[in-house]
Amino acid sequence: MKAKVHVTLKNGVLDPQGKAIAHALGNLGFTGVNEVRQGKYIELDLAETDRAKAHEAVKQMCEKLLANTVIENYAIELVE
Amino acid sequence: MKAKVHVTLKNGVLDPQGKAIAHALGNLGFTGVNEVRQGKYIELDLAETDRAKAHEAVKQMCEKLLANTVIENYAIELVE
Repeated sequence: MKAKVHVTLKNGVLDPQGKAIAHALGNLGFTGVNEVRQGKYIELDLAETDRAKAHEAVKQMCEKLLANTVIENYAIELVE
Repeated sequence: MKAKVHVTLKNGVLDPQGKAIAHALGNLGFTGVNEVRQGKYIELDLAETDRAKAHEAVKQMCEKLLANTVIENYAIELVE
């Protein structure tokens, strides 16, 4: 089973990486970009085949390693 | 209009960041993780309201700045 995890900064947390991208896009001539936020996208290939168990395992991985839950949110999506 | 962009390494391209995550998960006691790949997730808030124009603009942004198309793929998703 595959898991797709999105880790994004919480609203209100300053995102210097996103700001840098927005600035660079402006320099390249792209107008009309109001805001850019950058997050992480992690794909995991799991041996687990049970959906509930896989979700619980990935949740634990997010809490313990993948996301800094003080400033980041995470979203888990499971794919067969 | 909002655009969600996923930038991922092409198959076959070595992903040291993913390898490091897989290794760290193993050290934390998570078993059954076959492979981890890490990519980038970028959210753009665009002033453009026309779907086709917005897609074309984001495609150009990916080609010119957001993705290194030699080693990375990108996927664009538009949200109202």
